Amino acid sequence: MLEKYGHGGDLTTAEELYGRPTQKWLDFSANMNPLGPPESVQSVLERFGEHIGRYPDPRVRGLRQKIAEKYRIPVESIWVGNGAAECIDGIVKYLRPASAAVTSPAFTEYEDALHKVDAKVTHIPLRAEQDYRLIAEDLPPAGNMDLYMIGHPNNPTGRTVEARLIKNLLEQGETVVLDEAFIDFQPEEEELTFIRIAAQHPRCFVIRSMTKFYTIPGIRLGFAVSHPDHIAALMKQQIPWSVNGLAQMIGEEVLGDDGYAERTLLWLAEEREWFRRQLQETGLICYPSETNFLLLELPARSGWTAPLAQRWLARRGILIRDASLFYGLHERCLRTAIRLREENAVLVSALRDMLASEPEGGGEE
Amino acid sequence: MLEKYGHGGDLTTAEELYGRPTQKWLDFSANMNPLGPPESVQSVLERFGEHIGRYPDPRVRGLRQKIAEKYRIPVESIWVGNGAAECIDGIVKYLRPASAAVTSPAFTEYEDALHKVDAKVTHIPLRAEQDYRLIAEDLPPAGNMDLYMIGHPNNPTGRTVEARLIKNLLEQGETVVLDEAFIDFQPEEEELTFIRIAAQHPRCFVIRSMTKFYTIPGIRLGFAVSHPDHIAALMKQQIPWSVNGLAQMIGEEVLGDDGYAERTLLWLAEEREWFRRQLQETGLICYPSETNFLLLELPARSGWTAPLAQRWLARRGILIRDASLFYGLHERCLRTAIRLREENAVLVSALRDMLASEPEGGGEE
Repeated sequence: MLEKYGHGGDLTTAEELYGRPTQKWLDFSANMNPLGPPESVQSVLERFGEHIGRYPDPRVRGLRQKIAEKYRIPVESIWVGNGAAECIDGIVKYLRPASAAVTSPAFTEYEDALHKVDAKVTHIPLRAEQDYRLIAEDLPPAGNMDLYMIGHPNNPTGRTVEARLIKNLLEQGETVVLDEAFIDFQPEEEELTFIRIAAQHPRCFVIRSMTKFYTIPGIRLGFAVSHPDHIAALMKQQIPWSVNGLAQMIGEEVLGDDGYAERTLLWLAEEREWFRRQLQETGLICYPSETNFLLLELPARSGWTAPLAQRWLARRGILIRDASLFYGLHERCLRTAIRLREENAVLVSALRDMLASEPEGGGEE
Repeated sequence: MLEKYGHGGDLTTAEELYGRPTQKWLDFSANMNPLGPPESVQSVLERFGEHIGRYPDPRVRGLRQKIAEKYRIPVESIWVGNGAAECIDGIVKYLRPASAAVTSPAFTEYEDALHKVDAKVTHIPLRAEQDYRLIAEDLPPAGNMDLYMIGHPNNPTGRTVEARLIKNLLEQGETVVLDEAFIDFQPEEEELTFIRIAAQHPRCFVIRSMTKFYTIPGIRLGFAVSHPDHIAALMKQQIPWSVNGLAQMIGEEVLGDDGYAERTLLWLAEEREWFRRQLQETGLICYPSETNFLLLELPARSGWTAPLAQRWLARRGILIRDASLFYGLHERCLRTAIRLREENAVLVSALRDMLASEPEGGGEE
């Protein structure tokens, strides 16, 4: 399986399994913005040769200042990490909860980080019949959890969380980590984000990624926002120079690229609807999404399962995420990134062909 | 002081303190190879634009294979980190010693990492009268320490450790982490390194840095070698994609650059002796070194201290490490990188002028 090391987008494993070189895949298994990276990234790369011989700024001062200006929050409320992955791991290590609630399904790193500190994990079910939206009735009784970790929007379901639900948790005295790694794909980001609440809040943490929207996962860049006291402690806990110099330079450059952001939102608004319709016409169930990926369900009577579908598509040069590996989903669930029209059309057509044929077991790669 | 965040090479802090832009310093405070980075780095930077949109290989397969070949050790014995800093922190977190011995002075990250796991730290004194070489008589009695962390060569003293001493520790059943971050500056690296012993050893860990020798601190790259069982556990503990894609590509490229390595060793053999002689002629004590930096002592009767000297030089565009901040050294200790002849001559001449003038207190920047 592609997710041998826990995630999609692992092209080296794809090459090992199927013999196709890493650069020759049509990759729907990683949720990247297909419009990126922004043009300015190439010029930063060319200039970085003059900077690579110096240590990165250990306090990430330039980039934190830009983030502070963009989101109108204090610079002391911002901690930059070696990808959002470091922020997730760092916040959990810092809070060391004995108990925590995560949705099922959710991004697997929450639970991996919680297991490392021996936290007892409770799953909040997300239900297909609710189109995978989190509903208040499914939350544990107030006062029983040291921590809530919630994707907003959630991965792999693509659903945002109702603001009232989060606010209630905070008002009840709960501690909440919101993973907003994909929220910048939302035109209503400004209203939806909890970043300005978290910036002053003693029990709210927001995690952001810069690698998905700006298509720079190769270089690692994420940040977290919370009360300055927490941020100071998180920075103290971090290893020195964790955020490399190139990530800092690129981050400073792309944050102000409003044209790129506009083009992304225009593309997604149009493409998501077209892609969903096309996917549904193949006979798949395609759940609603408020971001740049879609949760799919193979028809029960087709006989196709996610591992079989992943293998069938991979043999044709297409990578898709086997979402049956997410706790709480079943063996017919797939996740796909939304890409450019002609690429999406290739996936739709391949899925149509696949569903028209008999499920192939084949050998396990 | 320059070391506001614990280390030299912090050009952003230097700019804040003295108003000179980051790229305008003559920097002796970070121990980088002045010949680097190797030429191939620029071409990797230009090509990286095609790769930045993909996740790094989570298992760092290509680079680990190259390291395995270069050092003739199993690939399963190699763990790559986001700089040697991640390896230090990761190994200490993994071993969780209750007690540990470090030399004084030593690289401060050992003790920072040990404090994070609440280890009780014992200092092994290094003595000026021994030219700061570690001697067996100063070690704690056998069987009292969960861990030894030793620089080989040690920072800021520049001294390697006698092989017999390390072997005795291992034979007595001690667990030893050797930090070989600067060992590649040694022509006898092949004989001195413990990398091949560590690769199969249940109680020996070697940490290497690739950023000093190849002058790529901006991008972060280090690795650790130990028994495959430890390495598997360390990789499991690491956050996903911790080693960015550019660091992996550059690492694969530079490791085989034998010409660069030869030029470096030729430069250093000649330059270190010349620089030491010149520094001693200014009246400073300059201790012997087996690597690319030198530990200096200001003459007692001069009235100059390390903080005063650092400030005086910084006002003239020169950065040097205030080594009085290392536990176990006194207020007249400085550390300097060895750079190119014309740069070294500038430092020598500035130090001569400084020592010929009255110590200036000045305001604290």
